Amino acid sequence: MEVTSSNFKELLPEIEDVINKSTFLAIDCEFSGLNVVSEINAFDTPKQYYEKVRKNCKEFLVIQYGISAFRFDPSDGKFKQRSYNFYIFRRPINKNIPDQRFLCQTSSINFLTSQGFDFNKLFKSGISYLNMSEETDYREKIEDRQKLRNNQHNNQQSPSEVDPIPQDVQPVVDDVLQQLSDFLDTDNVELELPKCNAFVRRLIYQTTAQKFKNKITLQTKNRNKDRILVASKFKSKKEQQEIDQRLFEEEMSVLDDFIGFTKVLRIVVDSGKMIVGHNMCLDFLHTIDKFLTPLAKEYDEFKECAHALFKNVLDTKFMSSSDEFKDLIQSTVLKDVLEAVSKDPFQLPTVEIEDAGQGYRVEDLKEHEAGYDAYITGLCFLSMWNYLGTLKELSTADIFKDFSLLEPYLNKLYLMMLRDSQYINLAGQDPNPSRDHVFYLTFPRDWRLNNIIELFSPFGGVYVAWINETSAYVGLFKREQAAVALSTLSQSDTYSIMTYSRRQAQLEDGPSPAPVNRRKRTLDNTPRGTASKKRQTVLEAESETPKKCARKELTKTFVESDAWD
Amino acid sequence: MEVTSSNFKELLPEIEDVINKSTFLAIDCEFSGLNVVSEINAFDTPKQYYEKVRKNCKEFLVIQYGISAFRFDPSDGKFKQRSYNFYIFRRPINKNIPDQRFLCQTSSINFLTSQGFDFNKLFKSGISYLNMSEETDYREKIEDRQKLRNNQHNNQQSPSEVDPIPQDVQPVVDDVLQQLSDFLDTDNVELELPKCNAFVRRLIYQTTAQKFKNKITLQTKNRNKDRILVASKFKSKKEQQEIDQRLFEEEMSVLDDFIGFTKVLRIVVDSGKMIVGHNMCLDFLHTIDKFLTPLAKEYDEFKECAHALFKNVLDTKFMSSSDEFKDLIQSTVLKDVLEAVSKDPFQLPTVEIEDAGQGYRVEDLKEHEAGYDAYITGLCFLSMWNYLGTLKELSTADIFKDFSLLEPYLNKLYLMMLRDSQYINLAGQDPNPSRDHVFYLTFPRDWRLNNIIELFSPFGGVYVAWINETSAYVGLFKREQAAVALSTLSQSDTYSIMTYSRRQAQLEDGPSPAPVNRRKRTLDNTPRGTASKKRQTVLEAESETPKKCARKELTKTFVESDAWD
Repeated sequence: MEVTSSNFKELLPEIEDVINKSTFLAIDCEFSGLNVVSEINAFDTPKQYYEKVRKNCKEFLVIQYGISAFRFDPSDGKFKQRSYNFYIFRRPINKNIPDQRFLCQTSSINFLTSQGFDFNKLFKSGISYLNMSEETDYREKIEDRQKLRNNQHNNQQSPSEVDPIPQDVQPVVDDVLQQLSDFLDTDNVELELPKCNAFVRRLIYQTTAQKFKNKITLQTKNRNKDRILVASKFKSKKEQQEIDQRLFEEEMSVLDDFIGFTKVLRIVVDSGKMIVGHNMCLDFLHTIDKFLTPLAKEYDEFKECAHALFKNVLDTKFMSSSDEFKDLIQSTVLKDVLEAVSKDPFQLPTVEIEDAGQGYRVEDLKEHEAGYDAYITGLCFLSMWNYLGTLKELSTADIFKDFSLLEPYLNKLYLMMLRDSQYINLAGQDPNPSRDHVFYLTFPRDWRLNNIIELFSPFGGVYVAWINETSAYVGLFKREQAAVALSTLSQSDTYSIMTYSRRQAQLEDGPSPAPVNRRKRTLDNTPRGTASKKRQTVLEAESETPKKCARKELTKTFVESDAWD
Repeated sequence: MEVTSSNFKELLPEIEDVINKSTFLAIDCEFSGLNVVSEINAFDTPKQYYEKVRKNCKEFLVIQYGISAFRFDPSDGKFKQRSYNFYIFRRPINKNIPDQRFLCQTSSINFLTSQGFDFNKLFKSGISYLNMSEETDYREKIEDRQKLRNNQHNNQQSPSEVDPIPQDVQPVVDDVLQQLSDFLDTDNVELELPKCNAFVRRLIYQTTAQKFKNKITLQTKNRNKDRILVASKFKSKKEQQEIDQRLFEEEMSVLDDFIGFTKVLRIVVDSGKMIVGHNMCLDFLHTIDKFLTPLAKEYDEFKECAHALFKNVLDTKFMSSSDEFKDLIQSTVLKDVLEAVSKDPFQLPTVEIEDAGQGYRVEDLKEHEAGYDAYITGLCFLSMWNYLGTLKELSTADIFKDFSLLEPYLNKLYLMMLRDSQYINLAGQDPNPSRDHVFYLTFPRDWRLNNIIELFSPFGGVYVAWINETSAYVGLFKREQAAVALSTLSQSDTYSIMTYSRRQAQLEDGPSPAPVNRRKRTLDNTPRGTASKKRQTVLEAESETPKKCARKELTKTFVESDAWD
């Protein structure tokens, strides 16, 4: 079901009920774009990976959020499903919230457009959201204003510091004072003052407070896109307090609207339900950052916070690529997983739409609509869960009560693009696979992939993961050659080599010799030199191969086939 | 008339004709957003201003371009008008062009949405563009590929460097070799190989070139969003060359489509027609950067290049705020200018739409549709031009031949938000108004506006333009107090003061003590501390006033009423 700002309020109670009655929730997001794919180094640690994804979350937006709620119905042994597809965009802006700049990526926009994504709907009817810190900020501004109003109307003191009025503005101010004085002699309730700029308005405010204390109050209002001052006669203290209170409540109600979609995530958190996503690292981090609390700078702090919020997180990309499933599921791209788990030895459990029109069917083929992808993810998960149960010869009803079957896959976020099977373990220590066969190499700026390949050729093939123009991680295909490679290559004036672990220690220790990722995002379209362009291509492939021609091909397809799904 | 990728090609000859027959062209752009307003310092030099606008151009997109062509028709003494409203978006992406990331600003998107801007149309049917350097880049890639194909099919050498095939991939490669061998024995023309990842494809390419030299060629093709290899039997050299040539021509034709809207700008440049814009600095810089040639890093180089491209540029915001007009035109916001020049002592010349449906009328009220705003700009310009002519008692026909009337306003770009009437003079030296009454002040981090006001209070009011948390430019209202202020305030351990000109010399001289603009754009939404937030507000107002409460008000209205129009 499509949810926008038009029907969000009305649907929220139903959504709450559905979440609370669910067995688990599958989620999926669509973004305005991402840099991550191009910024990850194949030999990043989970911590480094986190920092890059975090940065990405700060720059791009979630523009669609899919939640598919699956409920096991013991009465007929079938799953019931409801899915929601939320359009997410924070609008309109007001003075309590910064006017956000966000990045878009052309290919993402292009892709979503080709899939029929409705950007007009997004921008016009997207649902707002505020994370906790934004909400606090917003609330403080409202409360400050209320205090200010209270002070003003309890009106103890007149302004102690006064701006000097520039000579050329004095006549304007004098004219306004005359108008106000005349206004006091009329029966009129309000007087609109002539349009003037913000500085003059400020001077008029200040002068009015001096000259018409307890007689006139001013307010700035919008008139036909202009800001003008409106004077009204001073009311009784009680009357004024009531007005202030009404204004305050109105502002609080607008704040409540702004919180919007965040309420759904809070319900999810409170429900403690398992959330399931496919390749969900980015979705999960965005979820926390945008709708709950800004992602912590420190990796450990993030893990702690994330686990405190979500006790049961399951990534079907991690699950499907685990030892148990990897031989049965050749490709872990979502649609391929669905294909694999739809046939023997798997058996897709029966899933029915709970209420007509509120869910999806596989044949809807709305790939990359967040709600649909969430639904497909849920299906894949169910089939794998079912498979684990049948291995233990459990009955359907027993399988879907038995969360312990899922234990090995819980709270592990798949980290794509890394060379070894790393993951983020939200509930404990991350794995720490040996990278003893990996070296940190620095070299002259004019080195190309060939030079590195050649350097290591006595020890077999290598995988080169560029860091910048003068450094790279180099992984040996033949791990057993590591010691001899290091001792043979240690002495040189041209390049330097060190073990991966020593390099990591160096990075931890503090200010390093700028291991900047070479592929900065190309906001700046100024063309690079040809040489750097060629290296660029290599980088995008993080290729093992020295040939320029095919490298480009490789680049493109690598990104395409292994895209963030 | 609305122009998208659907009708662009067909309309281009007409557009060329209209441009070439015009008396002048009015232009206007809509952007995905801007940072400039918040980044300009009221005491920036034109050079510093340029650098900030340049950065802005690299980050944001032009999403709509309006051109309104005005032609004076001596036969009836009336102007004829045709207007075009181009949707601009570079799509689809391909491997010859980087996948661009661009910034959007929520308030801009919001505003455009509220005005009915069709983002779906933009993303689906926007017209592409390439500046010169992007085109060269693109062309080189096509030519490289063609060379590569020629080499491959002239087939002199087999690959000299070969990647080792990892053990686990060897069976896959062997299987493919067997399939290829079988394929050679059939009458089939093509063979689709099984889907495999980019690395394996690369190995297959290499092995095929070795084992089936002169027998089989491989190509990577798209099939249902996957990339697969397609084998075909080797053809005669001539046949192969013809195929190569066809491929090359197809790629060149796609390049030609990508150049798209750039062709219109090239026609404008070649025509040498006067271009007129309102507050056009941003539009003008974007025009050059996006559609012609990347903006030079050096300010002087930019001026030279810009003037070489456009000999006659007229900014109606500069014109309407000049001494000649400033008493007649109170506000230089576009709609206010139109209102002013529509009544006595102005007389709006008669303007007719040249062909039905291809122009605007004032009453269309499509404010902030680029084509409409360009049209309104043209009208304002015409009325001011006419006024200058009537002052000299020229006849209508004579006025609109007499470009010399416009001489004082030519090639001067209005620089909004600066404290003194600075402008960029494209055709010569910029004005260099005295800033002897301005000081560069550095101070402790905990200083607030109050501290500065107080410090200078013996010398009258001041205008404070914050640079960062510990420095600001301070302008005296009473300019004659400058010398005494400097000598009185020179000695302190708490703060330092220097003249504006000395500070500029320092900045020119090289690495400065980080005069970073304090208000970095808030891509990162992590909340700032309260103290910094309060200072933030001051900054946005660049206010003269010390009071926190009204300052926020001021901020908002300042930006609104003086928005980039």
